[in-house]
Amino acid sequence: MRIALDAMGGDSGPDPIIDGALAALRENRSYEIILLGPEELLQQHLATLGVSGSLAGRLHVEHAPEIITMHETPVEAVRRKKNSTIMVGFELVRSGRADAVVSAGHSGATLASAVKKLGRLKGISRPGIASLFPTLKQPVMIMDLGANVDCRPQHLLQFAIMASSCISKILQLANPRVGLLSIGEEAGKGNALVKEAHELLAASSLNFIGNVEGRDVYQGNVDVIVCDGFVGNISLKVSEGLADAAMQMLRTEILKSLRAKIGYLLIRGAFKNFRKRVDYAEYGGAPLLGINGVGIVSHGKSNATAIKNAVVVAANMVEKKVNQSIVESLAKWGQTESAEAEV
Amino acid sequence: MRIALDAMGGDSGPDPIIDGALAALRENRSYEIILLGPEELLQQHLATLGVSGSLAGRLHVEHAPEIITMHETPVEAVRRKKNSTIMVGFELVRSGRADAVVSAGHSGATLASAVKKLGRLKGISRPGIASLFPTLKQPVMIMDLGANVDCRPQHLLQFAIMASSCISKILQLANPRVGLLSIGEEAGKGNALVKEAHELLAASSLNFIGNVEGRDVYQGNVDVIVCDGFVGNISLKVSEGLADAAMQMLRTEILKSLRAKIGYLLIRGAFKNFRKRVDYAEYGGAPLLGINGVGIVSHGKSNATAIKNAVVVAANMVEKKVNQSIVESLAKWGQTESAEAEV
Repeated sequence: MRIALDAMGGDSGPDPIIDGALAALRENRSYEIILLGPEELLQQHLATLGVSGSLAGRLHVEHAPEIITMHETPVEAVRRKKNSTIMVGFELVRSGRADAVVSAGHSGATLASAVKKLGRLKGISRPGIASLFPTLKQPVMIMDLGANVDCRPQHLLQFAIMASSCISKILQLANPRVGLLSIGEEAGKGNALVKEAHELLAASSLNFIGNVEGRDVYQGNVDVIVCDGFVGNISLKVSEGLADAAMQMLRTEILKSLRAKIGYLLIRGAFKNFRKRVDYAEYGGAPLLGINGVGIVSHGKSNATAIKNAVVVAANMVEKKVNQSIVESLAKWGQTESAEAEV
Repeated sequence: MRIALDAMGGDSGPDPIIDGALAALRENRSYEIILLGPEELLQQHLATLGVSGSLAGRLHVEHAPEIITMHETPVEAVRRKKNSTIMVGFELVRSGRADAVVSAGHSGATLASAVKKLGRLKGISRPGIASLFPTLKQPVMIMDLGANVDCRPQHLLQFAIMASSCISKILQLANPRVGLLSIGEEAGKGNALVKEAHELLAASSLNFIGNVEGRDVYQGNVDVIVCDGFVGNISLKVSEGLADAAMQMLRTEILKSLRAKIGYLLIRGAFKNFRKRVDYAEYGGAPLLGINGVGIVSHGKSNATAIKNAVVVAANMVEKKVNQSIVESLAKWGQTESAEAEV
C-alpha cells in the first residue's frame, strides 16, 4: 500500500504532515508513504525530525518543486504547474507507482489534477468531494462539498450512488439511508433542482428516505446526504464558523468569573472528549469520488492525527475497492449511458 | 401603537404568547395588543391567567376561528382559510385597525397572507424573510431565509436594499456593510446566480464588501448577508441543528463524571450568559420585508421573551418607517422600473 502524500499542502508547512506520515507508518506496517515536495527542503525537515530505522525504509521523497496556492483557479493551476506536488502525486498513481494521493492543499486543484491524470469513472459526469460528519449517532457522508456549484438533478443522483457505495464499504453499512438536503420534508418542498432530483432518487434502487432538512444533518438518522456543492460547502463552513464562534463566546463568558474558571478546570475533560468526538481530524479527510483512482483532500489546518487518519482512509478506499463498487452500482442502476451521453 | 398578535401560532399553544403580550404591554405603555384566535378559547386563557387592571385595557381579542397548520401550502391555506388568525390579522392592518402583525405560526403562510391583504412595496418583485443573527460582535441581518427558493440576481439585489434599509433604521447603522454569501471571497467564486448578483451589487450604491463565506456568518464583520431562500434556510437550520447536537453531546460527556458534574454547577452561570447571547428569543422574530405593511414571524418555539421582543421589533419597524426607507432607497437606486417590468 503506497500512499503519495502532499507534504506542502497544509497551512503550517511540512512538519505536521511528516508527523502524520510517521504516525501512519507506525500504525500499519504494510504502508509506504511517498512525500511530495521540493526534495532538498523535505530532506532537511526529515533530517531535523531525525527519522530513522524501519520507518525511514518505508518513507520516500518524490521531488515536486511547484506548489499550487489557494488563490489559483484549479484548471489553470493544473495546466501551468505540471510539476506541482498534486500533479506529481497523481502521475505516480497513473504510472502505478502509488495507490492513492492525500493532500491538505487546494481541494479544487486536487480534484482537477485527479481528473486530468486519471480521468473519471465510467458513467460519472461530475466527480465531487464527499466527507464524513460527526452526528449524535454514527457519522453521515455529505456530497458534494464544493466541487460542483451548479448541478443538474442527474448529478445529485450520481452523488447519491457514489456516496452510498463509499460509505457502505468504509463503514460496512448494508443499505445506507440516503437523504436529499432541502427546506422541508415533503417531496414538493425545495428549489427546482431538488424537486427534480427527488423524483430521480425516488425512482432509483437506492434506500432513499426522502428530503432531510438542515436540522437533520447532525442527528444521525440518515447515512448519506446529497446536495449541490454550493449548498454543501456553505453548510460545512457555516458549521465550522458557528463552532468556532460559540467556543470563543463561551470562553469569554468563562473568563469573566473566578467561579466559572474553577468550574472549567473540573469540566475540561468532558470538553476534551466532546471536542474529540466532533473533531474533523478524527474523520481524516474527504474522498474525491468519481475519479478513476483514489484521492483524499484534508483540511488545510490538518494536524498529524488528521493526516494519519487521511492516509488510513485512502488505504481503506483502495483495499475495499470503493471505485469498483461505484462502477458496479452505476451499471446495475442503468446510469452509465445517460451520464455518458450528457458529457 | 396597535400590534395584532397571532395567539395560536406557537408550538406550545396560547399561554407563552399571552405571557409575551403582557410583558410587552408592561414594557411600553403606548402599546396595545390585539390577540388573534377563537374568542371563547382566548377569553378562557385570559380568565385563567387573571389579566386585569390597566394591562387588560390595552389587551383586546379579535375573533379568528381558523388556524393554518404547518403542513398546509401557503397559497392554498391563505385562499381557503379566510378567517384564519393570520388573515384576520393582516385584514386589521389593511383596514387601519392595527399597525402590524406578529405570528409564530407558518411563516410562508404569513408572508402569503401579507402579500394578499397588503400587497408588495412599489418596486419589489419578491418579498422575503430577514432575520438578525448573533455574532462575535453586533448582529448580522440575513435575507432571504426561505420564502424564495429559486431567485434571480435582481432579487438578491432587492434583498440587499431591503435588509440594508431595515438594519440601518433598527440598529441605527449609518452605512451597513453588505456581503453576498458564496463559497469563496473572490468575485468569480460561486454559482451562476451569485456571480451575476455580485455584478449587480458591485454596481449599486450599497456599501457592498463582496462575497462572504459560511465561516463569516458568525464573525460580525458584515451587517447584511444576502442569499437565496434555499441557502438561507439551510444555513439557519444547520446552525440550529448543530447547536442542539453539540449541547446534547456536551451534556452526555458531562454526565459521565462526578468531577465534570461539579464543574458544571460552577460554570453554569457562564453557560447561561452564553446561551442568552446566542438565543433567538433575544432577537424577537424575523421581519417580512417587501410587503406594504409590517409583519414579523417568530420561531414556533418562541417563549414569552421572544414574543415580547417580536412585538418590540414590530413597533420599531412601524415607528422608524422602515418601509418608507426601503421605497426611497429603491427609487434612489433606480430599481423601481426594472423590478416592476419583471413582475
